[in-house]
Amino acid sequence: MDTLSRLERTIAGRLADGDAQSSYVAQLHARGAAVIARKLGEEAVEAVVAALSGSREDLTAEAADVLFHLLVLLAEKGVPLSDVLAELDRREGTSGLDEKASRSS
Amino acid sequence: MDTLSRLERTIAGRLADGDAQSSYVAQLHARGAAVIARKLGEEAVEAVVAALSGSREDLTAEAADVLFHLLVLLAEKGVPLSDVLAELDRREGTSGLDEKASRSS
Amino acid sequence: MDTLSRLERTIAGRLADGDAQSSYVAQLHARGAAVIARKLGEEAVEAVVAALSGSREDLTAEAADVLFHLLVLLAEKGVPLSDVLAELDRREGTSGLDEKASRSS
Amino acid sequence: MDTLSRLERTIAGRLADGDAQSSYVAQLHARGAAVIARKLGEEAVEAVVAALSGSREDLTAEAADVLFHLLVLLAEKGVPLSDVLAELDRREGTSGLDEKASRSS
Repeated sequence: MDTLSRLERTIAGRLADGDAQSSYVAQLHARGAAVIARKLGEEAVEAVVAALSGSREDLTAEAADVLFHLLVLLAEKGVPLSDVLAELDRREGTSGLDEKASRSS
Repeated sequence: MDTLSRLERTIAGRLADGDAQSSYVAQLHARGAAVIARKLGEEAVEAVVAALSGSREDLTAEAADVLFHLLVLLAEKGVPLSDVLAELDRREGTSGLDEKASRSS
Repeated sequence: MDTLSRLERTIAGRLADGDAQSSYVAQLHARGAAVIARKLGEEAVEAVVAALSGSREDLTAEAADVLFHLLVLLAEKGVPLSDVLAELDRREGTSGLDEKASRSS
Repeated sequence: MDTLSRLERTIAGRLADGDAQSSYVAQLHARGAAVIARKLGEEAVEAVVAALSGSREDLTAEAADVLFHLLVLLAEKGVPLSDVLAELDRREGTSGLDEKASRSS
């Protein structure tokens, strides 16, 4: 379960000194936050479609793409994954339903 | 970093015997996979917008929403988070760039 | 088929002097471009889900939501619908496939 | 303003007897509704990003992509554009705000 922390560290390294010729993360970084955000949105759409009309393997692969691009976006914007996990921990005390209701727009 | 595993277990419990009156997860489950997938897509859009025009706190909260609804969708479709993490581990050996290129549609 | 032009004019009027108490468009405008863009993204996700697991009526309603929020976003950003239609006309001369390929990221 | 009707007719023709070698629409049709829906979702994400961090030209191009893929999805699912426009006309009588509230999930 250390996968995400390890991946976060790898991504941070490639953002800092990655070579855009050989590293996908460095290439995304060179194109900027708007492109990274777009990729996250596109991968999420693919996960939605995989869940509704794909196989379990499709959903597994698309979920991995969502997690990967979410980590790249967080790194690009300087938000540690631990902050996001702390937010999830914080919510778990409250009722999910009440919590969601209290945030709904 | 056990947050996601613990959350996965909580979600599984609420899918199995949650009360839709009080549990947000049980309520989503009662509405079905299409609604859960839609929620994931909507939260991802909100994360995209937060990354481009919100604060770090906004992005943190939206990233938590993406992770949460991704876990609910995986649970609903019977895909263990460990499978998704294993897929991320598997990819890390290959060059991210080559990997992405080899899968691109 | 004048529906979209008429709707564009109605939206422009509500952006200019709409009352956020009673007009949904004026309310969106008061919340800003990020919220309008988010709404477009969310409605598109709903159209995707409706196409894959809803009825024809669901897809019809969600497609209307996409068109409506696209028009509001264009108005908010000062892009006339006629510019978008002119772009579609322009492309029709070229092969859709070649055109798409020439723009793909 | 007949652009969308004319485009709808072109798309219908390519769905019916298009050659997937040369027509982008026929190629999408061969890949199925899930791929078309995914494309619509992805183009909408690109429009969201263009609205928040691109130029007017970017938004114009992405809005054209959204309209184009929405028309292809409607054609694939057998929903006439006129049904969607009729839905927009129907709503215009009611207050947009009330209308939206009455449909909100």
